Amino acid sequence: MIDLKTLKFDSDGLIPAIIQDADKGDVLMMAWMNPEAVKKTVETGLTHFYSRSRQKLWLKGESSGHVQEVVRILVDCDADCLLVKARQKVAACHTGHRSCFYRDIEGKEISEPVFDAGEVYGDKGKS
Amino acid sequence: MIDLKTLKFDSDGLIPAIIQDADKGDVLMMAWMNPEAVKKTVETGLTHFYSRSRQKLWLKGESSGHVQEVVRILVDCDADCLLVKARQKVAACHTGHRSCFYRDIEGKEISEPVFDAGEVYGDKGKS
Repeated sequence: MIDLKTLKFDSDGLIPAIIQDADKGDVLMMAWMNPEAVKKTVETGLTHFYSRSRQKLWLKGESSGHVQEVVRILVDCDADCLLVKARQKVAACHTGHRSCFYRDIEGKEISEPVFDAGEVYGDKGKS
Repeated sequence: MIDLKTLKFDSDGLIPAIIQDADKGDVLMMAWMNPEAVKKTVETGLTHFYSRSRQKLWLKGESSGHVQEVVRILVDCDADCLLVKARQKVAACHTGHRSCFYRDIEGKEISEPVFDAGEVYGDKGKS
């Protein structure tokens, strides 16, 4: 059982969650969780987040099928950030890249897309 | 040259930065940067952050010597999160652990400290 009171959510009720591939070790994305998203992630074993723009809970991969199977959830020293080690189906990024971190700070792409984002998402939005 | 206007800072003028060991691949910590911290990090090759509690810029390792030498800085698809690949001197966490993510979500410690935090920091505060 997880006591959500041990986590420090910010003034918007959110905590950042870093998603790292459990096997390959690459950092895939960062997204935000509210208490319900943390609970759903623990209960289902699939990452759930809170979308600040859409103001709703979402299952990562709900439209694409590119879910993230949770292997382990770690908490940092200040209890205000989570690190989720997970197994990523296909790719994490809605752009078609495996990781959302596919550019360096000068804007140069460091990896190629692994799927066609237009085909997968169409006009349905992204997840 | 980096154009800081390409990055999306939040309403407090900050962007989260994930620090990952460039060689070992483990995620060491997450902290916040303001535009000046990003600029200093790029210019000096050592990570700088903005402390929300102390409201000031700080060089990671300024009191402990446990600096992070920047190897590469990546930006995510939404340009609102940074991933800094760096070489960590000694350890990242002020508790003595190599990574700030040394506990699972149930509070169990998954690693041992690698230095004595009391000896390193004394009463000087933490960084």
